[in-house]
Amino acid sequence: MNEDMVLRKIEGATRQSRGGGVHLGIGDDTAIWRPAKGYETILTCDWSLEGSHFLLDKHPADAIGWKALARATSDIAAMGGIARCFLLSLALPAELTGKWLTKFLAGTNRAAKKFGCVLTGGDTTRRKDVLINVTVVGEVRPGRAVLRSGAQAGDALFVSGTLGQADVGLRELLAGNGLARAVNRNLRKHMYPEPRLDLGRWLAERQLATAMMDLSDGLSTDLPRLCAASGVGARIETSKLPRVVLRDREDALQLALHGGDDYELMFSVAAQNVGRLPTEYRGVALTRIGEVLAARRKIRLAGENGTETELVAGGWDPFRE
Amino acid sequence: MNEDMVLRKIEGATRQSRGGGVHLGIGDDTAIWRPAKGYETILTCDWSLEGSHFLLDKHPADAIGWKALARATSDIAAMGGIARCFLLSLALPAELTGKWLTKFLAGTNRAAKKFGCVLTGGDTTRRKDVLINVTVVGEVRPGRAVLRSGAQAGDALFVSGTLGQADVGLRELLAGNGLARAVNRNLRKHMYPEPRLDLGRWLAERQLATAMMDLSDGLSTDLPRLCAASGVGARIETSKLPRVVLRDREDALQLALHGGDDYELMFSVAAQNVGRLPTEYRGVALTRIGEVLAARRKIRLAGENGTETELVAGGWDPFRE
Repeated sequence: MNEDMVLRKIEGATRQSRGGGVHLGIGDDTAIWRPAKGYETILTCDWSLEGSHFLLDKHPADAIGWKALARATSDIAAMGGIARCFLLSLALPAELTGKWLTKFLAGTNRAAKKFGCVLTGGDTTRRKDVLINVTVVGEVRPGRAVLRSGAQAGDALFVSGTLGQADVGLRELLAGNGLARAVNRNLRKHMYPEPRLDLGRWLAERQLATAMMDLSDGLSTDLPRLCAASGVGARIETSKLPRVVLRDREDALQLALHGGDDYELMFSVAAQNVGRLPTEYRGVALTRIGEVLAARRKIRLAGENGTETELVAGGWDPFRE
Repeated sequence: MNEDMVLRKIEGATRQSRGGGVHLGIGDDTAIWRPAKGYETILTCDWSLEGSHFLLDKHPADAIGWKALARATSDIAAMGGIARCFLLSLALPAELTGKWLTKFLAGTNRAAKKFGCVLTGGDTTRRKDVLINVTVVGEVRPGRAVLRSGAQAGDALFVSGTLGQADVGLRELLAGNGLARAVNRNLRKHMYPEPRLDLGRWLAERQLATAMMDLSDGLSTDLPRLCAASGVGARIETSKLPRVVLRDREDALQLALHGGDDYELMFSVAAQNVGRLPTEYRGVALTRIGEVLAARRKIRLAGENGTETELVAGGWDPFRE
């Protein structure tokens, strides 16, 4: 096996995918991509690293491949954009270039088809541990991208889906013996997350969301980021948080507040537009969880017993001690 | 230090850079970039990994930052494109987020200014070893990108600059004690390579090169790639190879053939256009080193004593045992 053989394997596994504006794919110094007329380009990249984001003895190769692309594509959804093409950078041990790589690429390929974007290039090298970096290129109509900075006092705050589900899945995965199979909804959410591309695009095109971001590190870590970018605060009603049904209700609440990896969308909607939002969009629940406050960066948590506390970030931050 | 503080540091270090079509930079879910009218987008990414591509105890942080961007930008030069913007993915230990990161970013920033491209986003996480991935976005006029696949029998083969220089620099670096300083041309070439953006663009705009690629893994590894893509062979005259002056002449030849990391351009020129090429372009030597043959993938090395041998790849391939 040499580098060119690994590249040909990657090219072969994804050859069937075409379109997305890709004019020249894998195999030259760069890819060539033709932007659609009347669109802006949006760009994002995400790490997926062995030991930090996945475990080789717990996560199947195809789930690692799927999720590496899903993580990055979720940022495209959070802007209200359309995913077009992606670059895959992969470092791996020589002994994983056989069956493991085949399965990994099958996962990436399935995700690419589902998300509508095409593998167009990347870089491959040998490494003791598996390192992945994915860059996704998307498009959005000029002025229609939904930034983090547009939330205003009085806006309602919404989230899609169920919060904390992926973390419940992670717990089940860690409790199991050997390689996991996605036997239930929580494990599936952890292993094969689906970026909310349709919802994000719908919100952007109808200009319903004033601000939006995806929930990758947990509500308590990500909401302060949206508030800081918008120069606002927020008030969350704990009773409204769409959460996993667990025997321990407090546990379910903590997971909804701090659980990471859900890749749901969080967005603000101007009061006069709240009535235009359905309770679900294409099978994904939309839940009003609170409101935007003028008080800069203060985030209050209104409990079921009437008390109000300040929300303290407890989500995932790699540099937090 | 938390992830948002690291991001703000990166944003701050590169705030002065503007332009390149970047409409929204670091700090949101994605960057927003406006493609220039009448151009195609070219995309490339490259790993720079501790232990594989650099050593923390030998390479200064600013050289690591410079070279990570230079490696990826060289692929833009090899297509004849213009570099516009880039994404920086960085994983590093918490204890390097202080002075080391400041110097690293200074190196990246200097390179960005030199190459004319703007930092527009990325991803940051904590890791025991330093991992870097850079995606560069460039542009090229439709149909003007110089692919690897256009070489034809009878074309002349050229390279820019001096081959093997970066490898001599690497030797000096490894022989030294502690952190290196770029005290001479060879060390500078190894630590702060300069992608041949002006030359690549000039060759593409004048349609002088029929095929082109950059020399990152060494002539003996990269030339077979160009030949395979074009379905041709080649004949190289060893006496013509522009090499470093060393006491051991055979050593200098081996470095010119197999040395990596030079980031020079290799390109083919139709016989009737050879006269249009100067001996140097903006201070960079252009040397005719051989010719393209019809014999598919056969690469012959014509020695100074009149013998012909087959060229065997001896450059850098991470998967070669």
